[in-house]
Amino acid sequence: MAILKSLGYNLYFGNSAFNSLKAFLTKNKYSSYFILCDENTLQHCLPTLISSCPALATSNIIEIESGEHSKSIDICTHIWQTLTDNFADRNTLFINLGGGVVSDLGGFCASTYKRGIDFIHIPTSLLAMADASVGGKTGIDFNGIKNLIGTFSQPKAVFVHPDFLFTLPKRHVNNGLAEIFKIALVADKNLWLQLQSPSAFKKPEQLILKSIALKNNIVLKDPFDKALRKVLNFGHTIGHAIESHYLGSPEELLHGEAILCGMVIESHLAWQKKLLSKSELDTICKTLIRRCPNVNLPLQPILQLMQNDKKNKNQQVLFALIKKTGNATYNVPASAKQIEASVLFFNSLVK
Amino acid sequence: MAILKSLGYNLYFGNSAFNSLKAFLTKNKYSSYFILCDENTLQHCLPTLISSCPALATSNIIEIESGEHSKSIDICTHIWQTLTDNFADRNTLFINLGGGVVSDLGGFCASTYKRGIDFIHIPTSLLAMADASVGGKTGIDFNGIKNLIGTFSQPKAVFVHPDFLFTLPKRHVNNGLAEIFKIALVADKNLWLQLQSPSAFKKPEQLILKSIALKNNIVLKDPFDKALRKVLNFGHTIGHAIESHYLGSPEELLHGEAILCGMVIESHLAWQKKLLSKSELDTICKTLIRRCPNVNLPLQPILQLMQNDKKNKNQQVLFALIKKTGNATYNVPASAKQIEASVLFFNSLVK
Repeated sequence: MAILKSLGYNLYFGNSAFNSLKAFLTKNKYSSYFILCDENTLQHCLPTLISSCPALATSNIIEIESGEHSKSIDICTHIWQTLTDNFADRNTLFINLGGGVVSDLGGFCASTYKRGIDFIHIPTSLLAMADASVGGKTGIDFNGIKNLIGTFSQPKAVFVHPDFLFTLPKRHVNNGLAEIFKIALVADKNLWLQLQSPSAFKKPEQLILKSIALKNNIVLKDPFDKALRKVLNFGHTIGHAIESHYLGSPEELLHGEAILCGMVIESHLAWQKKLLSKSELDTICKTLIRRCPNVNLPLQPILQLMQNDKKNKNQQVLFALIKKTGNATYNVPASAKQIEASVLFFNSLVK
Repeated sequence: MAILKSLGYNLYFGNSAFNSLKAFLTKNKYSSYFILCDENTLQHCLPTLISSCPALATSNIIEIESGEHSKSIDICTHIWQTLTDNFADRNTLFINLGGGVVSDLGGFCASTYKRGIDFIHIPTSLLAMADASVGGKTGIDFNGIKNLIGTFSQPKAVFVHPDFLFTLPKRHVNNGLAEIFKIALVADKNLWLQLQSPSAFKKPEQLILKSIALKNNIVLKDPFDKALRKVLNFGHTIGHAIESHYLGSPEELLHGEAILCGMVIESHLAWQKKLLSKSELDTICKTLIRRCPNVNLPLQPILQLMQNDKKNKNQQVLFALIKKTGNATYNVPASAKQIEASVLFFNSLVK
């Protein structure tokens, strides 16, 4: 088992991670446990968790519907109400058993209930294992904008049990790979080269652990997203706008799917700005486009949605862009015309 | 002008505090300003603020109704919506111009919008000046429970302009005095003795500054309410239950009014537990009871409301109690019978 030190907490990685969880529970003497899960993790992951940690058998279970629409203020209200109705005190442990939706939402509810109770993440999706469970960002969507309301709050620990990956449908595997491609593109050229080979995906544990370690290094240097950490937003400025645009529609995208599109488009932006060579752009597009959803992006709604991106300053949309593969820069402005050219470039590729 | 150093920020106290605010605004180059106020501070305080700091003339103004009922998730939603509609970015400054309701609510909204934007407090009530503007607690009420949802988030600065006190109705003066009595009872016997003399109230600035300094000393030692800071909850376990009970009714109490009742009752509890002598209890009751609202407290609803107090552990209600005047202790359990006796004692005094 691997143990990574993050911002004041440990991340335990491996199929014996639940032994560490048992020790954590014994040590901390919580007054009660609440487990947040969705219909999938309730069925496929909760039984494993409870049989590994019998102390959790008396937990209060809060089930939400899977999907981004659950990251809403109404569902927060439901969770806070459940905590109150069951007299959850400040010594309660809140356990997020699920993917990015569960950890973002549960982290936000826990960090604001009675001004913050302890919470841990047990990520069950590739995306949550490789990305969402590290960094202390919690959040819900508001007014159609992704993660508009949230906090920076660190979990007390993260327990990654890679066997949960076998419970995932294929679409969710691609979803998680998006963030692994991203971290390689912004921070590790070798990992990016490795990802060009199909054999790389035979040992997903190693990819996940490498991704977590790379992200963790960046987060430790800039916990509050003031500077360096912004490189992790590569693909996300346009990606979040794309995700928000399709939210609640029949074509709703998973987060990683939107980010895959965003990375192709923002790579083209980087090429326009001479940060990437044509051959680097071609390699990126070739690698990512076959995993992208087949969508024809409408320009105006997406430009409009970018107006509320969290990185904006003085109503100027700012991007994190790759500067040669494996390096990135941030706070790069782009004109509407440049963005338009890159979106049209993407549309021409998926046609 | 006095300057106090708190948790990473300064508190500027005096009628020239707005000069410091001007310097603060010049230095920080915010992209936009949002001022949260209620109908009273809009009328009586905003004009003074803007004429002192002309840079704020272009601020977006968010007006809420005065009163505890505004500390709700619906009003949060309204505030977040206004920020979004006006493209408030992460470099926005959120200004709380008002009493405790405005600073609790505005602090919560600012600390969760885009995972936290800068905010400052300009307290306009005696209660907010002497108490609510220091310590970094933000919060809203939920499900009839005071401050159930909130964060620990520090403002970037606090500017106390004591002349705003002249805009207050008398009821709000008594309201603020409650927290001054409290800090004296838990932390400063000399201040408590001084408060016995009517002349003490002739120079409220000095009382406020002393209260802030005493509270600040405690908060600096325990920012997250894990141990020592709990003494500041003296009067608040029962006080919050009383306040919650009358919330929204024609007999709705101000926070300080409920805390005055709570302090009488919890002093009686302290006497039952032999932490206070009979003569100390008599002096406290004599001093506080004439400022208490004339209410006959119903026992069961108040016991019930204490079940969700933030200090509880394992469903046991815990109190912060005075241990001789000017000292306090915390995490003191009390039985329902003891609490009942103290509430009945209070009712017998106000009869």
